[in-house]
Amino acid sequence: MRLDTDPYLERYAARVQGMSASEIRALFSVASRPEIVSFAGGMPNTASLDMEAVEAVAAALVREEGALALQYGGGQGRPELRELLVDIMRHEGVPAHADDLVVTVGGQQALELIAKCFVDPGDIVIAEGPTYVGGIGALSSHQADVRHVPMDDDGMRVDLLEEMLARLAGEGRRPKYVYTVPNHQNPAGVSLSVERRHRLAELAEVHDLLILEDNPYGLLDFDGRTWPSLRELVPERVIYVGTMSKTFAPGVRTGWVAAPPPVRDKLVLLREAADLCPANLTQMLVERWLTTQPWQEQVKRFRSVYHERAEVMLRALEAEMPAGVEWTVPSGGFYVWLTVPAGIDTSDLLAKAINHRVAYVPGRGFYGDGSGGDKMRLCFSYPPVERIHEGIVRLGELLHAELELVQAVYGDDIPDMRRRGPDEPGTQLGG
Amino acid sequence: MRLDTDPYLERYAARVQGMSASEIRALFSVASRPEIVSFAGGMPNTASLDMEAVEAVAAALVREEGALALQYGGGQGRPELRELLVDIMRHEGVPAHADDLVVTVGGQQALELIAKCFVDPGDIVIAEGPTYVGGIGALSSHQADVRHVPMDDDGMRVDLLEEMLARLAGEGRRPKYVYTVPNHQNPAGVSLSVERRHRLAELAEVHDLLILEDNPYGLLDFDGRTWPSLRELVPERVIYVGTMSKTFAPGVRTGWVAAPPPVRDKLVLLREAADLCPANLTQMLVERWLTTQPWQEQVKRFRSVYHERAEVMLRALEAEMPAGVEWTVPSGGFYVWLTVPAGIDTSDLLAKAINHRVAYVPGRGFYGDGSGGDKMRLCFSYPPVERIHEGIVRLGELLHAELELVQAVYGDDIPDMRRRGPDEPGTQLGG
Repeated sequence: MRLDTDPYLERYAARVQGMSASEIRALFSVASRPEIVSFAGGMPNTASLDMEAVEAVAAALVREEGALALQYGGGQGRPELRELLVDIMRHEGVPAHADDLVVTVGGQQALELIAKCFVDPGDIVIAEGPTYVGGIGALSSHQADVRHVPMDDDGMRVDLLEEMLARLAGEGRRPKYVYTVPNHQNPAGVSLSVERRHRLAELAEVHDLLILEDNPYGLLDFDGRTWPSLRELVPERVIYVGTMSKTFAPGVRTGWVAAPPPVRDKLVLLREAADLCPANLTQMLVERWLTTQPWQEQVKRFRSVYHERAEVMLRALEAEMPAGVEWTVPSGGFYVWLTVPAGIDTSDLLAKAINHRVAYVPGRGFYGDGSGGDKMRLCFSYPPVERIHEGIVRLGELLHAELELVQAVYGDDIPDMRRRGPDEPGTQLGG
Repeated sequence: MRLDTDPYLERYAARVQGMSASEIRALFSVASRPEIVSFAGGMPNTASLDMEAVEAVAAALVREEGALALQYGGGQGRPELRELLVDIMRHEGVPAHADDLVVTVGGQQALELIAKCFVDPGDIVIAEGPTYVGGIGALSSHQADVRHVPMDDDGMRVDLLEEMLARLAGEGRRPKYVYTVPNHQNPAGVSLSVERRHRLAELAEVHDLLILEDNPYGLLDFDGRTWPSLRELVPERVIYVGTMSKTFAPGVRTGWVAAPPPVRDKLVLLREAADLCPANLTQMLVERWLTTQPWQEQVKRFRSVYHERAEVMLRALEAEMPAGVEWTVPSGGFYVWLTVPAGIDTSDLLAKAINHRVAYVPGRGFYGDGSGGDKMRLCFSYPPVERIHEGIVRLGELLHAELELVQAVYGDDIPDMRRRGPDEPGTQLGG
């Protein structure tokens, strides 16, 4: 199976490159060609789903409850589904009650509704740097002032968050919330250490912080480990977002948010204004998937599919990358976050890469402040195993050639390509 | 088939009554009882769908294209679906190109994204009075100043719109757009006359107006007639919203907006921030429905189902209503809009009505300015035929009793119950 276009690359390219729609289309008429290996789209490997089981579930649903499945539903989402989502959260030790949940159109709608609920133009929201591009999108559409806290291999540098909070307090300012993807973060591929989770929870108490905990990848640890959730540590200070997109399928567009009752009520009203209600059809499909199929076995299968792909990518990177290139080593999720040596700008390099039949997402898409020019995100979840190696070989060739060019042009006086935009401390991750 | 709750009544009740969530739940634990005839929810009769055909379509989709159907898609919606939606528009003579379309989560998301695109707090948007409650919801969530133009049996009083525009121009103000549901309007059940459509198009030219044409019910004229669309008359001034909710099923949450390219591009960006993309699964289900099934025959079946129900309701109203009660006579769509005599407040009456085993939506939900206290919306699309008569009998008994009470309490000095809120000219429709 092949997608006609790669929607992820499309929207990232629009952010990163400032390209026009027609330029993007031209790029994609090229990038979607089968000869190109795309590490761009953060797409689950839906081909690994037990499709016969999905077919049986869909057919039985329409046959047995069609009139209800095809009708309008309530804005909060079906109580039956919310009970099942609470069970999923319990698998990671995340406490919640079905009443606290609002079913959303993927995790993305949750991020958007929360931004709409809390953010007025100019309000500060703190996020990891880099962070999920859709999180930036939701915040930008409400004109938030996004401040990034650098990351390292143990996730967000909570010590630097503490400094930032002190600095803001000195200016008489407070963030509306701290947005974090603590598990197998997109795009950095790292997780927040247990120590830092506890410290973040303490900071939330001390600074009266609201935390937005976004957890799409928590069940996709390669070894099946789980981490203590922030909601577990300081439940009353955390709004939690989950999704079925990575443990089942993004095509059902089913996510959820768990929030304290006053926030939950506001989110239901905003969601009704936004699109009335989640689709009964897809909600009920998820319910039947969770109640009639061995969904945990499917999650294990996904884990093993992604683990294998990650190993292949990491081995290829070791073998193919020129000196000076660095990358994170994921223990779950979909992503490797790669840093190129000085002199290379990953946004500028993308067209050449596609010409060399390999695609990635340039790092700038994951920052609200123009930094990340020396980074790229490589997604290993989607391409077939044999193509992952080939793609990394191509990327290695490209970077070798590009570094020779940089050396020839600049010698030892290499310009700093990492940032376009306001002058702020850059990310420390991988570089 | 019976719904567990009536989501429409729920959200209208919240708007109209200012009730708390727990009060609403208590009301609905009563209102959802099978002995109550609900004319409240604006729900299509999904039980009239050919469910075997839907089942076959859903099963074949997962079997043949499951991996794609369960994957992420592009923010604008699938090109294949957009081509088919253009065909549907052509059935009503509405011109469009697939490139101009953005697929949305029902028509509601289109209304929300358009409001987000155009409305800053305090901006004026003109709408019919009464108007679709979800339209008010989308506008209110962006703090629009909604101004209502009264209606009569020929739809919006375009002469009064002209006066309003002149008045606003005198104040140096312009509306961001005019929101209209020209065909079988929700809740008024009337359509904009051909003459007024042409006059509205002229006004749009003269006053440089943008029109938001929302057309959920255009194909549900009982006699299969269509009306000239505003997009046909002044294409460059009209943003058009359509939906599959009434011609197929709301459960697929598939609507669309047709807009000029600069607006379309903005809407795609906003939609990606809102929820990334429409569900491939439901989009592809709609595509297969439209290409492999006789969807126009299904629309004819819906028309005849709704026509029969409308006739039953209108006959029952003639027989059962006390003198002084008036109502509109729909030629399509789902709704009858009813006006009660002075002294009765339909918001206050709702609890008594539910106690008398009949439910409706109080008129105030359809105005942004507190008017409509003497109105109610009766939806005939959903209840079984035999129950429609019974429900109107109960409503007649209730209104007879209530009018006797009013007469006994007030005599000839009956207070005006129509309005709660700012003092503005009330609707003329039905009164």
